[in-house]
Amino acid sequence: MKRLFLNELKDHFNEEVTISGFVDSIRNLQWVQFIVLKDETGKVQITVEKSLEENKELVNIIDNLSVESTIKVTGKLLSSPKVKLNGMELIPKTIEVTSKNLSELPFNYKDTSTVNLDTRLDNRYIDLRSDKNILLFQVQSCIVRYMREYLYNNHFTEIHTPKFIGAASESGSEVFEVKYFDHKAYLAQSPQFYKQMALASGFGRVFEVAPCFRAENSNTSRHATEFTSFDVEFAYINDFNDVMDLEAEMLSYALQKVKEEYGAKIKELFNLDIVVPKTPFPKMRLADIYDVLEKEYNYKVPDSEKNDLTTEAEKLCYKLAQDKFSSEFLFVIDFPAEKRAFYHMRDENGILQGYDLIWRGVEITTGAQREHRYDYLVKTAKEKGLGADVAFYLDFFKHGCPPHGGFAIGIDRLTMLLLGIPSVKESQFLFRGPSRLYP
Amino acid sequence: MKRLFLNELKDHFNEEVTISGFVDSIRNLQWVQFIVLKDETGKVQITVEKSLEENKELVNIIDNLSVESTIKVTGKLLSSPKVKLNGMELIPKTIEVTSKNLSELPFNYKDTSTVNLDTRLDNRYIDLRSDKNILLFQVQSCIVRYMREYLYNNHFTEIHTPKFIGAASESGSEVFEVKYFDHKAYLAQSPQFYKQMALASGFGRVFEVAPCFRAENSNTSRHATEFTSFDVEFAYINDFNDVMDLEAEMLSYALQKVKEEYGAKIKELFNLDIVVPKTPFPKMRLADIYDVLEKEYNYKVPDSEKNDLTTEAEKLCYKLAQDKFSSEFLFVIDFPAEKRAFYHMRDENGILQGYDLIWRGVEITTGAQREHRYDYLVKTAKEKGLGADVAFYLDFFKHGCPPHGGFAIGIDRLTMLLLGIPSVKESQFLFRGPSRLYP
Repeated sequence: MKRLFLNELKDHFNEEVTISGFVDSIRNLQWVQFIVLKDETGKVQITVEKSLEENKELVNIIDNLSVESTIKVTGKLLSSPKVKLNGMELIPKTIEVTSKNLSELPFNYKDTSTVNLDTRLDNRYIDLRSDKNILLFQVQSCIVRYMREYLYNNHFTEIHTPKFIGAASESGSEVFEVKYFDHKAYLAQSPQFYKQMALASGFGRVFEVAPCFRAENSNTSRHATEFTSFDVEFAYINDFNDVMDLEAEMLSYALQKVKEEYGAKIKELFNLDIVVPKTPFPKMRLADIYDVLEKEYNYKVPDSEKNDLTTEAEKLCYKLAQDKFSSEFLFVIDFPAEKRAFYHMRDENGILQGYDLIWRGVEITTGAQREHRYDYLVKTAKEKGLGADVAFYLDFFKHGCPPHGGFAIGIDRLTMLLLGIPSVKESQFLFRGPSRLYP
Repeated sequence: MKRLFLNELKDHFNEEVTISGFVDSIRNLQWVQFIVLKDETGKVQITVEKSLEENKELVNIIDNLSVESTIKVTGKLLSSPKVKLNGMELIPKTIEVTSKNLSELPFNYKDTSTVNLDTRLDNRYIDLRSDKNILLFQVQSCIVRYMREYLYNNHFTEIHTPKFIGAASESGSEVFEVKYFDHKAYLAQSPQFYKQMALASGFGRVFEVAPCFRAENSNTSRHATEFTSFDVEFAYINDFNDVMDLEAEMLSYALQKVKEEYGAKIKELFNLDIVVPKTPFPKMRLADIYDVLEKEYNYKVPDSEKNDLTTEAEKLCYKLAQDKFSSEFLFVIDFPAEKRAFYHMRDENGILQGYDLIWRGVEITTGAQREHRYDYLVKTAKEKGLGADVAFYLDFFKHGCPPHGGFAIGIDRLTMLLLGIPSVKESQFLFRGPSRLYP
């Protein structure tokens, strides 16, 4: 018999159904046994009257059953308004134990308030069993699904660029080195060069969702040595406003879908409302932000720090965006060119044609129009001290390459912000940091 | 003005439109200039009458224009049945050269019959400009899109598992080693252990599309050191027939979509028909295949080689599947257990609960029910000589893990077979092999 998902049960009252899942809890009372069964879509109560002759075997099975085992149950689904859990119960005919929990769990994943984060990460396969964590990754899957869908609907092609690279190109210091047969390779920090190559090859609009590797020996709530990047790049833009506007449309589209599919469940488990942002998102110049932060929030920083957003200023941008624009999102523009990569375009006055996107006080994107003119690129690469390592990249611009721009979103960070998770250590399926390679 | 894609032009006759793209060809005649412009969706002819006074500047621009440059053109679109290319032409008002082809191309990508493959791969950004290559990656994007869509529609969650692993787990010999701060890490050969972990964590049904890394120093048409794997794993199966059947449904769904969206274009450029397979796909035991191959195709191999499919037998399976089942696909089952990974399930008679899927004479998948019983897994791991390195994996099965199975498809190989490409070197965006790390 076909397995039904537990959130489909409501369409099957008074039918015989087969369901499967983990045993969430067992109550073995004098006259009755209750199991709460869960799968990735919901929970249901299973009720066994102990006194009934035909239940003898079932009673025996449940007497020997441990929570966290998995079972397969066939029985009749009844509408039972008195049952708190969804007003239904399953009266089983057969129960098959499909796997056994062999011993006590390393910790109680249902209440981790006193559990060390490292213990949770060491036993991540247990930690992930909580309702919140299951939902977290369903929501992450959902938002990525619909960001992709937005792009597919707008003529984008998904590409898969290599993670092995021949030279430590973008910035030598933070690249992992690989023993590659009898020579060396490096791991790509981002698909930046290759997604631009696709545009030079005439692909028009591309995106990639793939791991990036950064050899940063830092331990913050926002950094990992490996993370999943959602990278977008597209040609024939007029200027970098096109890039910002497309990103805003994409995020708004995906958040609308998340709200529709998971809004109620997110409210229930995380007590959070998904806010679908209006587009276009507001944009502010970096200097203007510092002016407002000083004038209206009494936040002062020395001029020497005003060439970038301080972490505190980033945080305050959440308040600023809400107060001034009723928005959770804020594009920050007019960063000093010298702080950015050589391939970001500057206009004729040297003004960077790029932006950061701040969501809920945290930077989630750096985006820009890219420099597509060969001679300018050669010049900026030289200024940054880049030589032979980027020669292969510069070649891409020798034989025609349309004006283009793009951005990247770290999806672990995106999920973290969406659900109010304190750290990417908990919004990554399996966190990787300088001192964490297991499990 | 909004950029129109060239395949959208047919809805805009007699309107002023703005289009962008690469200059595919220029014909500069005595009285008229023709440009064929191309973008990733199609081509269009641009016509400039040289004698008209108002065209003076345009004529000058085109006189100085080189093919492979990119331009942005605004003008009026006319229906012109006499124009072979789609029966339309654009009469430009303005032409803006958005990027210049600065010199002769390294080779003519429109006819590579005499071009060395290495030259093409060295200059892949040029090689990819051909109509066939642009289409190839659009088709790859399309098939992956709809394989995902099939899974989303069937309760699957997309996950992103780490590529950094702490130990060379599956088989020490073919794993890349990474310098990881002051110690060592390795690159995952597949997400196998982690997608199973997701099921032990209660995720139910998961998939991942991500790079895999194999340190095989081999140089065949089917192998690369890095490739993109489409990995699927799901719980609560009855047996491995569920795995085969889901894979068949998924492929059939995606191929239907490829046929709808790109069938005509594939026919035009590759002269190939996309065949949407009927489900379920036929299944045959390995031993029976050798019997039929011997009896009906006079193909004989020594008994000692009959524990796996020889490359020639794989090829003959295409003919066999077509003759016997009118199918391009064939599931091969009953491989000897000793040839497969320790985590593949064996039944009580030691028969492997796994399969290979052969498409057009090439293996595209290995799939199986997995062993989810802790004590059996410990035993088979030990038999294969695996110790501490897999201890973290064995832990996943200690606290309940539902019966499950899955499979993986290399999407470069899938695309290669779909379009009749001779080698994954040409179906990967940028091929990576033992002696190829550039560009």
